[in-house]
Amino acid sequence: MARWLKENSADSDVVVSTRARLARNRAATPFPHKIAGTPQAALVRQAAVDTFIGNGRDFQLMEMKNLSEVEKNRLVEQHVASKELCASEDGALVLSPDESISIMIMEEDHYRLQYLKGGFQPEEAYQVCKEMEHLLAKNVDYAFNNKLGYLTACPTNVGTGLRISVMLHLKGMALAGTVDQILNSLGQFGLTARGIYGEGSSPTADFYQISNQITLGIREEDVVKNIRQVVGRLIHQEREIRKLLYKNNQLEIEDRVLRAYGTLKHAKKLSSEEACQHLSTLALGISLGIINPCSQETIYNLIMDTMPAMLTAENQSVAQRDLARAELIRNTLN
Amino acid sequence: MARWLKENSADSDVVVSTRARLARNRAATPFPHKIAGTPQAALVRQAAVDTFIGNGRDFQLMEMKNLSEVEKNRLVEQHVASKELCASEDGALVLSPDESISIMIMEEDHYRLQYLKGGFQPEEAYQVCKEMEHLLAKNVDYAFNNKLGYLTACPTNVGTGLRISVMLHLKGMALAGTVDQILNSLGQFGLTARGIYGEGSSPTADFYQISNQITLGIREEDVVKNIRQVVGRLIHQEREIRKLLYKNNQLEIEDRVLRAYGTLKHAKKLSSEEACQHLSTLALGISLGIINPCSQETIYNLIMDTMPAMLTAENQSVAQRDLARAELIRNTLN
Repeated sequence: MARWLKENSADSDVVVSTRARLARNRAATPFPHKIAGTPQAALVRQAAVDTFIGNGRDFQLMEMKNLSEVEKNRLVEQHVASKELCASEDGALVLSPDESISIMIMEEDHYRLQYLKGGFQPEEAYQVCKEMEHLLAKNVDYAFNNKLGYLTACPTNVGTGLRISVMLHLKGMALAGTVDQILNSLGQFGLTARGIYGEGSSPTADFYQISNQITLGIREEDVVKNIRQVVGRLIHQEREIRKLLYKNNQLEIEDRVLRAYGTLKHAKKLSSEEACQHLSTLALGISLGIINPCSQETIYNLIMDTMPAMLTAENQSVAQRDLARAELIRNTLN
Repeated sequence: MARWLKENSADSDVVVSTRARLARNRAATPFPHKIAGTPQAALVRQAAVDTFIGNGRDFQLMEMKNLSEVEKNRLVEQHVASKELCASEDGALVLSPDESISIMIMEEDHYRLQYLKGGFQPEEAYQVCKEMEHLLAKNVDYAFNNKLGYLTACPTNVGTGLRISVMLHLKGMALAGTVDQILNSLGQFGLTARGIYGEGSSPTADFYQISNQITLGIREEDVVKNIRQVVGRLIHQEREIRKLLYKNNQLEIEDRVLRAYGTLKHAKKLSSEEACQHLSTLALGISLGIINPCSQETIYNLIMDTMPAMLTAENQSVAQRDLARAELIRNTLN
């Protein structure tokens, strides 16, 4: 299980996780790409270390330059670090024991304060980020402009620096063929949809990340409220579509779910893509009560766990990974 | 289980069944198509009834005109009657309790004496037909020409009137892509290959019926001997190809077999074609020792049992049959 993912999350029939992050930068310090490898970068990191490491907390500091490719990929696939952070020469990560709290240091901004939790939890996710922001403020003067708000390296984050993302499994809408239309309509509510690995990534097995687009000229609390309302409606819609689909195509859906289960339980090797597709179908079946081999969270977790890097001992081949993936899934489902 | 198919048949890793039949006609009586619906047809039938019904035997007489379409289809799919017999207005069938002995009356010839047994048993199959021929000779003078031998409606059967057919599962050759080439070479040995429902039927999931082509100018015993030799070599070749394939593609084959098993064990609905394909793959897996959920005979039998007519209560739809087929297979494998 990804450490931050717990059983019995809120709305887990449709929602994998909620993530909040606040982008913050030190005042009077150039943005990360301008100070790579300089003493200023070291100062940026030191302020986070002084705040979060020790002081009665068992947070861990990881410096990217000390990690192997496999370790870095694992962090990306568990959604606790970005690819950009991994590529940053000064990049560092502060991580809580359950990996729900992560602070990316010297990524695009000096600090990215993040909280990740299973289920639909925008208020709590925001609240935890806010507490970290207050803590860090003891050691860092934030770059702030009275007119714009918090300053960030990329103008798309200026203002609140707040991004709340909800990862949704929109299998019903995908099967009904309405997912694109519905996701395109999110723009009018200030939200946007992306694949599960963020900007530019394509949707994997009907998992989508919905997040707020707007950070400027809006209060942080209103971002949270908007996510609660619009994503709440989306969750409701997805449930209705699933019920309708099942009512109108009961046999078809049951057959599809049970075949996916049969393949996952017996296949000797599984590619990441195929595993993801079948697990997605199985998650639908669990939510419809067709089958109950494990929790939704276990399925979501298997999807993350069976991504290439999670299975990679260094130099392991694609073929060996396909075997290890199938074995992990068989063992989990049996 | 088809009544004539028993567990632990000879060479059942490759061979489903052996069938022998002798075509015989009454002397001085026109062939069936010339006497349809006449008293002569009734005489033809009566001679067989007098010979085989009663007299301490519990053989059963079935008249085609009294059977429903579903009952007739079942006989065809269990290989105890032909479509031609079912369509004949005077058509009748004498059947032993285990359905291994069947005598088709007023099919293409007046009498077709047949014996059907699981595994590779050409000598025994021939012997049983020969005993029936002797019995029937008490009530019937056979149409016989000293130069040609036994006379039959179709010139391809003149001479011995003997056809021995062996149903083989040539999955290894099919996977290796050599099956066509090997089957085409059978002509030089006086043998021919067809699909599992005889002349003109196409191969189903790599099951083939191999039989002798020649009936004229040859001794019956030599037909049996030739089948033993050539088909015996074919069985050996098939085993070698399976072993080699498995050795060179172990993972691929195991994955394929286990996926077929997973689908058969879990699918909610299965078409006849898909079921047949997966059962064929599973049979290969059993012969290679990859998996052992049941005997080869059980698989062969499932293939016959899940043919459309075996599942048809009158007026049952295709969709209902697909459900019933999947259920039967799930229940058998569980």
